[in-house]
Amino acid sequence: MNAPAFAPRLRPDEATIATVIAELNKRFGNRAVTSLAVRQQHANTLTWTENQPPDVVVYPQTTEEVQDVVRLCAAHKVPVVPFGTGTSFEGHTNAPYGGVSIDTSQMKRIVAVHPDDLDCVVEPGVTRKELNEHLRDLGLFFPIDPGADASLGGMVATRASGTNAVRYGTMKDNVLALTVVTPNGEVVKTARRAKKSSAGYDLTRLFVGSEGTLGVITDITLKLHGIPEAVSAGVCPFPSVEAACEAVIVTIQSGLPVARIELLDAAMVRGVNLHSKLGLPETPMLFLEFHGTESSVKEQAQRFGEIAVEYGGGPFEWATKTEDRNRLWQARHDVYWAAYALRPGAVSIATDVCVPISRLAECVEETRQDIEASGLIAPIVGHVGDGNFHVQPLIDPNDPEEVARCRAFVERLVERALAMEGTCTGEHGVGQRKMKYLEAEHGPAALELMRVLKRAIDPDNIMNPGKIVAL
Amino acid sequence: MNAPAFAPRLRPDEATIATVIAELNKRFGNRAVTSLAVRQQHANTLTWTENQPPDVVVYPQTTEEVQDVVRLCAAHKVPVVPFGTGTSFEGHTNAPYGGVSIDTSQMKRIVAVHPDDLDCVVEPGVTRKELNEHLRDLGLFFPIDPGADASLGGMVATRASGTNAVRYGTMKDNVLALTVVTPNGEVVKTARRAKKSSAGYDLTRLFVGSEGTLGVITDITLKLHGIPEAVSAGVCPFPSVEAACEAVIVTIQSGLPVARIELLDAAMVRGVNLHSKLGLPETPMLFLEFHGTESSVKEQAQRFGEIAVEYGGGPFEWATKTEDRNRLWQARHDVYWAAYALRPGAVSIATDVCVPISRLAECVEETRQDIEASGLIAPIVGHVGDGNFHVQPLIDPNDPEEVARCRAFVERLVERALAMEGTCTGEHGVGQRKMKYLEAEHGPAALELMRVLKRAIDPDNIMNPGKIVAL
Repeated sequence: MNAPAFAPRLRPDEATIATVIAELNKRFGNRAVTSLAVRQQHANTLTWTENQPPDVVVYPQTTEEVQDVVRLCAAHKVPVVPFGTGTSFEGHTNAPYGGVSIDTSQMKRIVAVHPDDLDCVVEPGVTRKELNEHLRDLGLFFPIDPGADASLGGMVATRASGTNAVRYGTMKDNVLALTVVTPNGEVVKTARRAKKSSAGYDLTRLFVGSEGTLGVITDITLKLHGIPEAVSAGVCPFPSVEAACEAVIVTIQSGLPVARIELLDAAMVRGVNLHSKLGLPETPMLFLEFHGTESSVKEQAQRFGEIAVEYGGGPFEWATKTEDRNRLWQARHDVYWAAYALRPGAVSIATDVCVPISRLAECVEETRQDIEASGLIAPIVGHVGDGNFHVQPLIDPNDPEEVARCRAFVERLVERALAMEGTCTGEHGVGQRKMKYLEAEHGPAALELMRVLKRAIDPDNIMNPGKIVAL
Repeated sequence: MNAPAFAPRLRPDEATIATVIAELNKRFGNRAVTSLAVRQQHANTLTWTENQPPDVVVYPQTTEEVQDVVRLCAAHKVPVVPFGTGTSFEGHTNAPYGGVSIDTSQMKRIVAVHPDDLDCVVEPGVTRKELNEHLRDLGLFFPIDPGADASLGGMVATRASGTNAVRYGTMKDNVLALTVVTPNGEVVKTARRAKKSSAGYDLTRLFVGSEGTLGVITDITLKLHGIPEAVSAGVCPFPSVEAACEAVIVTIQSGLPVARIELLDAAMVRGVNLHSKLGLPETPMLFLEFHGTESSVKEQAQRFGEIAVEYGGGPFEWATKTEDRNRLWQARHDVYWAAYALRPGAVSIATDVCVPISRLAECVEETRQDIEASGLIAPIVGHVGDGNFHVQPLIDPNDPEEVARCRAFVERLVERALAMEGTCTGEHGVGQRKMKYLEAEHGPAALELMRVLKRAIDPDNIMNPGKIVAL
């Protein structure tokens, strides 16, 4: 491996930017926008990361138009920052070196649905809810559900997952093929529609989780699933987060094919009650869902109930009506906003670690003690069936002491997960904020291999520079 | 993307080879072997591909020893060909430019089993049966089962699958992490043991299916599954392969979580009867297996029975005893050898295409007609739940006319699959024999991207040269 090192990435000079903007105006008319407000909306707008706007935002409508933008940027070595809905947490959409934000919100076609093959082809700007709206009448659904109604392009780019991942996997497992415009302006189709293949390197998985640093995704072939014949959901209180985690571990180990198993600690339940008016007992709580036939769902729920009792949990309360179930899961998806109810006016910090499930109870419990010792308001929520959880500190950004205390807590959280064979990010991605942890997580040789890939595919570092491995 | 093109790969000169052999003898003693018989056993020994032996076979026992071999070869630009059990079909283990075969059969440690996390760490020489033997008392199993008792390293390298893939996925889905010695002699650990991660590029999937062309795998972290509480298996006859395929399509579309659903055409059933003494009716046949709880298995089987009747199939016959079930699946796994019973003394040609399941019945039926029109003896067997099937022509290699007829048939088979959005290989891999189809399957831009990856990671083309994308 001897790909040359990058030259340091610089912001292009003003004249170059002016030339690119002029070309984009000529080509895209009012679909190229330079107003500060729009540019700021296209940089990081969530969490405490600084907002670093691009120089111009362009709204292509086809793969060919994306090609034109990338070729123009490549010719001038100007950064390209792909943009979905701007709901990522780690500064993914920031433009630290300026450049062109490619907003995919006008690429919203659902190109094809193949019910017989349980797959579909969509453009990257389609959001997960829009897709499921479209699929409902066909009896199909797409299971991956991060908190936000994110774009599917963004979800591919960050290797997103969510509450259903414990049963249906993550974006890694649910993308069959991609069309990608690579940094040289070529169009690569990563795979065929066959359900499996051994025909060469796995280009699909190369781009899933690449966060726009290797190319711009312009269409996506996704696996779909039949809407289960029966769904049952409910909540189950536990005396402690530790007890709840122990129950989760046993549930997973026993092979119970639970579709969702989500932990909220007492603080997060309080936030949810305030935000979503749920009236749940304010104690650690698992939110669960089972998918299957009428009889298998009943069987699963009964087995889980038995496990819960063993760990002091219960009673397991059912949401039998569809509207109650939807209300429950909407509340779960809104936790990021619900947390604010615990400290109105505060800034929320997203965190995201994942450990082998055998270490989950220990990791969550140590973290809970650390929150207490740190004097932070920091509710916990987690996709605990995967060993993945989020702590969401709510801080006053104008109190430097509190900010420092929170930063130190977040560092310890990541170090704790890494020490338990875990990862610094289960589903949010690296972006700008997690770059510093990659060497500790992967070691120098693996990190250098990632750099080799980046340099080989994007030698001028134009694709979303300043993210993952390329400063 | 501007990685330089490869210099044409040449066989190293005799003096260089002699130097490398002398160094290996010094370092490994009688674990470096140059006898012709051993060298020939380490090149292609199955199907009609020419046997191209390496210059020397070495048997390392640790990652460090693999590093030593790779560093030595890198210093002299001598080819390295990783070797598992030699059961691949596409010439993967051939050494067209000579060099060093790294036989992993002395790397057989099961390093760790983590029952709580449903994963384990194994060395690459452990075979799938050896692993399952080890796991049985823990109530766990590893589901991926190609026909042969292949090494797990080889299975990672070819992105193998088998009869359980319809439910449990392929090697792509069941590898959590790898340790790999890269062509520069560095040791890369591709991921942590957490069940999911978004921490950078997916190095694990980069190596799964890379067929030894990007590095040598020295340990593997695999996902495990609990042995299901209940298993039921059986066979179901159909009036035609088309009817059987239609029943499969409906089974998959209806979301029935079948664990195995395998097609044998009448010719293959005849072969199995001869080879494994089964006495099945010689008509197209589905072999099925259901995993779950007692009640869910019963429910699945009943639903499948209803679907089968709709397509003129049945009666569905149960293998209720474990030994009957094992006998059935052993027979299924032995089809490669069973086919020989149809034409003793013939040479068998392995083929392997996969299409979207909506095209399966059409693809298999056209293929059946093509076999008939070609006058070949060529039974069909398939992992039809994934749209993947194999035709296994049995030919007289000394009859040039028949060889030509068979080659033309195989070409048409691949073209037919590609025309139906399928792939030239569902699970066997590219090796030497499928290289010529990659451009038709992926297009020039994707193929060039694969070459960019190869050149960046292995600039001197020492890792298994002459396979996948690098001549």
